[in-house]
Amino acid sequence: MTTSAVEEKIQFADQKQEFNKRPTKISRRSLSRSISQSSTDSYSSAASYTDSSDDETSPRDKQQKNSKGSSDFCVKNIKQAEFGRREIEIAEQEMPALMALRKRAQGEKPLAGAKIVGCTHITAQTAVLMETLGALGAQCRWAACNIYSTLNEVAAALAESGFPVFAWKGESEDDFWWCIDRCVNVEGWQPNMILDDGGDLTHWIYKKYPNMFKKIKGIVEESVTGVHRLYQLSKAGKLCVPAMNVNDSVTKQKFDNLYCCRESILDGLKRTTDMMFGGKQVVVCGYGEVGKGCCAALKAMGSIVYVTEIDPICALQACMDGFRLVKLNEVIRQVDIVITCTAPQPSVLKGNKNVVTREHLDRMKNSCIVCNMGHSNTEIDVASLRTPELTWERVRSQVDHVIWPDGKRIVLLAEGRLLTLSCSTVPTFVLSITATTQALALIELYNAPEGRYKQDVYLLPKKMDEYVASLHLPTFDAHLTELTDEQAKYLGLNKNGPFKPNYYRY
Amino acid sequence: MTTSAVEEKIQFADQKQEFNKRPTKISRRSLSRSISQSSTDSYSSAASYTDSSDDETSPRDKQQKNSKGSSDFCVKNIKQAEFGRREIEIAEQEMPALMALRKRAQGEKPLAGAKIVGCTHITAQTAVLMETLGALGAQCRWAACNIYSTLNEVAAALAESGFPVFAWKGESEDDFWWCIDRCVNVEGWQPNMILDDGGDLTHWIYKKYPNMFKKIKGIVEESVTGVHRLYQLSKAGKLCVPAMNVNDSVTKQKFDNLYCCRESILDGLKRTTDMMFGGKQVVVCGYGEVGKGCCAALKAMGSIVYVTEIDPICALQACMDGFRLVKLNEVIRQVDIVITCTAPQPSVLKGNKNVVTREHLDRMKNSCIVCNMGHSNTEIDVASLRTPELTWERVRSQVDHVIWPDGKRIVLLAEGRLLTLSCSTVPTFVLSITATTQALALIELYNAPEGRYKQDVYLLPKKMDEYVASLHLPTFDAHLTELTDEQAKYLGLNKNGPFKPNYYRY
Amino acid sequence: MTTSAVEEKIQFADQKQEFNKRPTKISRRSLSRSISQSSTDSYSSAASYTDSSDDETSPRDKQQKNSKGSSDFCVKNIKQAEFGRREIEIAEQEMPALMALRKRAQGEKPLAGAKIVGCTHITAQTAVLMETLGALGAQCRWAACNIYSTLNEVAAALAESGFPVFAWKGESEDDFWWCIDRCVNVEGWQPNMILDDGGDLTHWIYKKYPNMFKKIKGIVEESVTGVHRLYQLSKAGKLCVPAMNVNDSVTKQKFDNLYCCRESILDGLKRTTDMMFGGKQVVVCGYGEVGKGCCAALKAMGSIVYVTEIDPICALQACMDGFRLVKLNEVIRQVDIVITCTAPQPSVLKGNKNVVTREHLDRMKNSCIVCNMGHSNTEIDVASLRTPELTWERVRSQVDHVIWPDGKRIVLLAEGRLLTLSCSTVPTFVLSITATTQALALIELYNAPEGRYKQDVYLLPKKMDEYVASLHLPTFDAHLTELTDEQAKYLGLNKNGPFKPNYYRY
Amino acid sequence: MTTSAVEEKIQFADQKQEFNKRPTKISRRSLSRSISQSSTDSYSSAASYTDSSDDETSPRDKQQKNSKGSSDFCVKNIKQAEFGRREIEIAEQEMPALMALRKRAQGEKPLAGAKIVGCTHITAQTAVLMETLGALGAQCRWAACNIYSTLNEVAAALAESGFPVFAWKGESEDDFWWCIDRCVNVEGWQPNMILDDGGDLTHWIYKKYPNMFKKIKGIVEESVTGVHRLYQLSKAGKLCVPAMNVNDSVTKQKFDNLYCCRESILDGLKRTTDMMFGGKQVVVCGYGEVGKGCCAALKAMGSIVYVTEIDPICALQACMDGFRLVKLNEVIRQVDIVITCTAPQPSVLKGNKNVVTREHLDRMKNSCIVCNMGHSNTEIDVASLRTPELTWERVRSQVDHVIWPDGKRIVLLAEGRLLTLSCSTVPTFVLSITATTQALALIELYNAPEGRYKQDVYLLPKKMDEYVASLHLPTFDAHLTELTDEQAKYLGLNKNGPFKPNYYRY
Repeated sequence: MTTSAVEEKIQFADQKQEFNKRPTKISRRSLSRSISQSSTDSYSSAASYTDSSDDETSPRDKQQKNSKGSSDFCVKNIKQAEFGRREIEIAEQEMPALMALRKRAQGEKPLAGAKIVGCTHITAQTAVLMETLGALGAQCRWAACNIYSTLNEVAAALAESGFPVFAWKGESEDDFWWCIDRCVNVEGWQPNMILDDGGDLTHWIYKKYPNMFKKIKGIVEESVTGVHRLYQLSKAGKLCVPAMNVNDSVTKQKFDNLYCCRESILDGLKRTTDMMFGGKQVVVCGYGEVGKGCCAALKAMGSIVYVTEIDPICALQACMDGFRLVKLNEVIRQVDIVITCTAPQPSVLKGNKNVVTREHLDRMKNSCIVCNMGHSNTEIDVASLRTPELTWERVRSQVDHVIWPDGKRIVLLAEGRLLTLSCSTVPTFVLSITATTQALALIELYNAPEGRYKQDVYLLPKKMDEYVASLHLPTFDAHLTELTDEQAKYLGLNKNGPFKPNYYRY
Repeated sequence: MTTSAVEEKIQFADQKQEFNKRPTKISRRSLSRSISQSSTDSYSSAASYTDSSDDETSPRDKQQKNSKGSSDFCVKNIKQAEFGRREIEIAEQEMPALMALRKRAQGEKPLAGAKIVGCTHITAQTAVLMETLGALGAQCRWAACNIYSTLNEVAAALAESGFPVFAWKGESEDDFWWCIDRCVNVEGWQPNMILDDGGDLTHWIYKKYPNMFKKIKGIVEESVTGVHRLYQLSKAGKLCVPAMNVNDSVTKQKFDNLYCCRESILDGLKRTTDMMFGGKQVVVCGYGEVGKGCCAALKAMGSIVYVTEIDPICALQACMDGFRLVKLNEVIRQVDIVITCTAPQPSVLKGNKNVVTREHLDRMKNSCIVCNMGHSNTEIDVASLRTPELTWERVRSQVDHVIWPDGKRIVLLAEGRLLTLSCSTVPTFVLSITATTQALALIELYNAPEGRYKQDVYLLPKKMDEYVASLHLPTFDAHLTELTDEQAKYLGLNKNGPFKPNYYRY
Repeated sequence: MTTSAVEEKIQFADQKQEFNKRPTKISRRSLSRSISQSSTDSYSSAASYTDSSDDETSPRDKQQKNSKGSSDFCVKNIKQAEFGRREIEIAEQEMPALMALRKRAQGEKPLAGAKIVGCTHITAQTAVLMETLGALGAQCRWAACNIYSTLNEVAAALAESGFPVFAWKGESEDDFWWCIDRCVNVEGWQPNMILDDGGDLTHWIYKKYPNMFKKIKGIVEESVTGVHRLYQLSKAGKLCVPAMNVNDSVTKQKFDNLYCCRESILDGLKRTTDMMFGGKQVVVCGYGEVGKGCCAALKAMGSIVYVTEIDPICALQACMDGFRLVKLNEVIRQVDIVITCTAPQPSVLKGNKNVVTREHLDRMKNSCIVCNMGHSNTEIDVASLRTPELTWERVRSQVDHVIWPDGKRIVLLAEGRLLTLSCSTVPTFVLSITATTQALALIELYNAPEGRYKQDVYLLPKKMDEYVASLHLPTFDAHLTELTDEQAKYLGLNKNGPFKPNYYRY
Repeated sequence: MTTSAVEEKIQFADQKQEFNKRPTKISRRSLSRSISQSSTDSYSSAASYTDSSDDETSPRDKQQKNSKGSSDFCVKNIKQAEFGRREIEIAEQEMPALMALRKRAQGEKPLAGAKIVGCTHITAQTAVLMETLGALGAQCRWAACNIYSTLNEVAAALAESGFPVFAWKGESEDDFWWCIDRCVNVEGWQPNMILDDGGDLTHWIYKKYPNMFKKIKGIVEESVTGVHRLYQLSKAGKLCVPAMNVNDSVTKQKFDNLYCCRESILDGLKRTTDMMFGGKQVVVCGYGEVGKGCCAALKAMGSIVYVTEIDPICALQACMDGFRLVKLNEVIRQVDIVITCTAPQPSVLKGNKNVVTREHLDRMKNSCIVCNMGHSNTEIDVASLRTPELTWERVRSQVDHVIWPDGKRIVLLAEGRLLTLSCSTVPTFVLSITATTQALALIELYNAPEGRYKQDVYLLPKKMDEYVASLHLPTFDAHLTELTDEQAKYLGLNKNGPFKPNYYRY
């Protein structure tokens, strides 16, 4: 869930088909099913101070220049740069790992010569990443991976600083591909690295400029969807450069799932329902990292938590952690909250389908809250609630009352989509982990000696993963112990890591 | 720690050497360094009701018969059988997984034809395992893996039931190898499976009866030491049958480490010192599974816990779990308790050395308690305390006061050996997990189609690991959810598992 | 804090003076210091669906009739009644205790003949209370105790149902007293019970219609401010009817403080700052009920919490609960969050002053968050930050960055006023406890035999307090055990309670 | 429970009767029912190093002198003094509060002139108390309050140091009263203060030397039984000196109940059964301080905890803390452990009777563990298990298996008596709180100006209670904040306390 899940609402089966069928000639109509679903998801971005939206002109039709005279960008309004700069500065304070990388890069420039084309959400945190890549020696060109998520003033600030950025909030699908094309199809500049979030950029280059891959040293992909696409390419023998799956790195996974959800389940429920947790009976479907986080948080707040699981090992963990393991049917009549989180963390796995069925919904008690913390919108069978005898009442943003003929109301949050995404926020610290992971993956792939990485999908090397973690320790004033020479020798370890084998379970 | 650690106090370097040098001709003297250290460790076994010990005759010199007239065994006193039977019956009640296996075996006998030679601790729990193997169709012969740990009345009960058992409490080293030899060197019976705990049995067959391996289908090894020996054999190309490392199975690891230590740290400290945990300052060195368990338990009891780590990922986990990450030096003057647990779980790793040095010990405050929850006795530099200016005072069993010239006392538990092993007990439930894992590993190896397993060291297949877990769920009246056909198809999973890829982190 | 604190931001010294000086003739100007501060506090009420506010006419100038033809009310817009009714119906679902009282009142009407004049916040929850009082037999007339907190549509719904309600959102101070006067100064109807929240209604009757007290059987007062006023009247010998302090009842206190704050500290911090709690260092000033709740919640989320205290008993509790007890100076440079909650629960006590001084603020690190969970705005010396060298930047509602000349920013929440009040919401369940307590206090005072209560301030009888609790147990499907006759006799207790002496500490 | 409960197993009704009937002429036979039951309870004292017990001579028949030539004492063996001294020195290290009192007493002697006669358990901790009272200026004479609990070597050490001590382990009832008599009936010395634990000493003086009360300034009583007796005397108008009930002081209560039981429930269960807590289902009867401690500890260890309550306020607390509130019947078939703790803390209340009945016991599942953490042995109807069809089997000290005809076993701990007392230990820190409270109560009563205390039973003044707490803070390196003059004035508090009103609930 969280960031990596931001764009994950597509069924793999569909997607595969779609990937092959994707047309090379773009028209608004023909593309209606072909951009990744993630790129059109609604997205609760941080409030924008300048979204007066009175300006209806398409950015593509505007002539804008930054203060240095460059017009190699396309944003909503270059004049918003100052507001964006403030946002970036505030974000910098909470992304100390990237700032530390910048500092270390004052001497050597590990990305000198790198030409990175990127396609991600355009937020203040992304801006800190981009400017860090710049400080490390890279040239960057950037588009948005979602038509709604761009913060216009941040895009303006980046453009003002000289970054060729092509993105604005509320792009059409045609705009979406046009922006990506403007990033890669540029005279006298050819990318040698790709940073992608959802796979649309990678897809575009595959379809339109396959020759470009000759110069490309590697792809760094952050999202579950994108990673899945890469594995499929690899399986089909069509992956022609090394790719790095940064979604499954240990540090990122722990923060995206366990640590983030431990907090966001409370936040999401509170913001939408103002309910009290104490004494409430809750059933959590799934006891992976997300489930563990949800259960721990609710237990700590005084809820009585039940767990459902299909995997006996996770089930036994739930028992030992003090949760009654039940089948959903056993408790469905008595619980106050139902939470689904059946998607285990590694990218190759996905959330289950119809974990909560209409039959379950029929048996819930009045005022029962139903929400999804997994990673797709399939876990709750929301479609089954779209029947004539049930009345839907939108009581506030992201909150629907579904009303049965006898007056019983079910409180459905975010229409069964990700609660965290829709009704909570992702802390900058979590985004910092992600951005640092991306930066280190780019450095690794760009600097790897010829032959270390083949045309395959790789996980971030353990040592880099450890490095991401170590860069975030100063935030907590945390002091790592260093092995003495004698100890390192005794243990047969390098003093700088890696400290664990790849299969270590943390 | 716990069972698997029972026998883990040997340095790998030493051990390797020792393994090669092991003499084939045994004399009490020459063996002084050659049986595995684990086999001579003192062991706080459950109280024996019948250890009047007035009988000084060596069991080897006695003529004993069980009620059916068999004398194919050697135990302390066959008359103690009844007491042992009661212990076994009580243990059966807490080992429902093995009892379930027995029930399922009423139709088919998955071990029919199996001839298992075993070398483990001889306890009530082992007896339940052995009788289960019998019920599954196997013939068994058994020796003890530790010269102190045998419960004589349990051995008697097994002998009375017809199991050829060769073991008693207080064997000499010569007795130790004699017993093992009596298990394997028997006319008209040749083992086709080995169940070992520490590797001594395997070693003996290698050295004395190498031809026996022609008929052996596999080795199941439970201990870290034994597993390490097997990996070394494999590396050296000398492993001539498949071996299964059951020590590193997920379920066993979680129980041996996280769940068991969460309870035993409190138990061990309380039994030895009667201290109050509330408000105490504690430093825990190492934040692997054992450290996580210790920290969680002490935090819950109101202690203030600091953590030291060398691995930045584990360090970040400690931070997110609410523990200040420090270097030992920073807090050594202020803490009330120092706990070492620097050995990460997989068998290939080991505990660190001199994590607590004399310098640290010199700076601790009066009455500071020092103990080790890792898996070897190297973590605390106890040797450095054996200097003339320090006085040692044994205040109760397993508790020493080490007194500085100025009167400062350090409370050292178990002389720096494993606290759990020495000052606490291992719950039967944890032993049940281990025994079930062993039984399933034997079944798997014995029934595997030719060629599935080569001459290598394997982990328990994920599906078997899940099966061990599922057999323990009824203890908690826990109800597992089953995938519907539709869901299984959607997820691409078999309804009976395995549910996760091998690298899943749980 | 929470409800009872909603109106608690007045210094007792000031207030005492003010109380005596309060003019009887009201003019907008002269009243500027004379209505209780609580009545003008900004109040983050639930979103109103119908506040189009395009209607600028003062309700006092409007002619409105409800559908039954009555015009004995004054609300913003009677046509909003339907929206309000829906809100009330939703609230009813979460206030089962009052609904249970209604059901029990179908036979006897314990408030038959009661004429209650009330002055409280006008919310959906209050409406449920009022309609319950009606169902119990009482006649009610009602005004608002705060000029901002009225939900107009709820007021409309009450008026439509026939309740004489005089209240709207955005009253002037003149309006405020006019509304109160319309409740009491009515031909042919004289109140015999008062339900007050803040003491303004009581004050008004004292000043304007002192003779009215001849018929009044008692006052029920909910707020700390109002209770304090009553104790002062009592001390001065001027209290001429029995009064009941419902603020200090055990059940209400536990929910207003411990249980509510345990959740609202997380909610308030998250909504304002989107911060991550894991690994953060927090200092909580004060370890009373509120402090205990804040500490427990943050510890559970993985924060490292320090506590400051002046009372050694509470200090020792903090130690035993696992928090380091420090002086603020010791940790001020290192903490990420500073929370003040120095007001102990009973009404006679109040929050401390300048617990966080400018000197502390000067030494905090960049981005440190400062907030107040106590009950007045004196705990943080916010005034000291209003100096020219510091820049204030409002970054979002209720969040100010105070910026030092060197660029350091402090994040000040709610300008040092109550975080819970300003940046979080009070769950309906907590309001249900309060409303039920009020209803039972009214019943008790109204039905008490002559002479049971003198002209003094009383606490809710233990048995009623227990009854409030018991009415809320069904919400949790909680089943109370009843004493057998034999047990009751053995214990010397009545089977229906009270079960504890008054001084029992819970 | 804990210390104060050591002697609490008498029914109040019985006791009252017994008190009046107590004969003045003592014979071994006639006294068989007349000493307080507490004085004959079995007591698991710390192991004694010197109990060779080969010496069968009664101490009363021995001629012993200490090294200074005094023979004004009667102990088992004066030669054991050295061993006792070491025990006392170790205890001193864990009783810093008393040591601090000694230090402060170097200048003034607040007990100069005090002649204290005491009757308590004679342990190392008591010795630290007695020697502290001596250092504060008092003369002391001492007897044991329990015939089994005296540590002989500690008594010897006290005698060697010049304290007239009359106590040994294994006194007869005649010895018991003889020892008490030797303390008070002494030529040329008359006590002016009484420190009692159980009320036997007070009783003796009442019956035998009533005139002695003319010079006595006060009684300090520690136990529930003794306090109860005092309240009865007071009620009957027969209390002729002020008495102080130190049992109900806040600090002592919190430690005796909440903090101590949180740890001892785990310790007691583990030492007796070696069970694993994770995943176990537990029902706790009673949610007072003891119940809260038990529930919190077991929840933290991963148990699933149910609560039963008769008081709706405590019941609601259980709900909000995350425990399902049930009737015992609802869960009795499914739980693994049943714990009773129905005695609320103040001395005037007592534990319930037959909370667990034979009917419940009949319905428990096999291997269910039953134990009592309350304060009398009435909560579990153990007597009902003494029927012919049930077999009792003592499996280890304090553990009985009660076996039903169908083979079902119930594991009964300590025969239904206090688990903490019988199967765990009380940490010295808790005893330090008690001893310090006693010392301060003696100082208060001895130094109080004439008339401050009447012939009544008093609680320790809040300020002294706070002082007890403050003396224990240094153990935790805890730093109390002091009010500034300005803050103290603002709050209307003395800077040195008391900080809370008497009814504050903590």
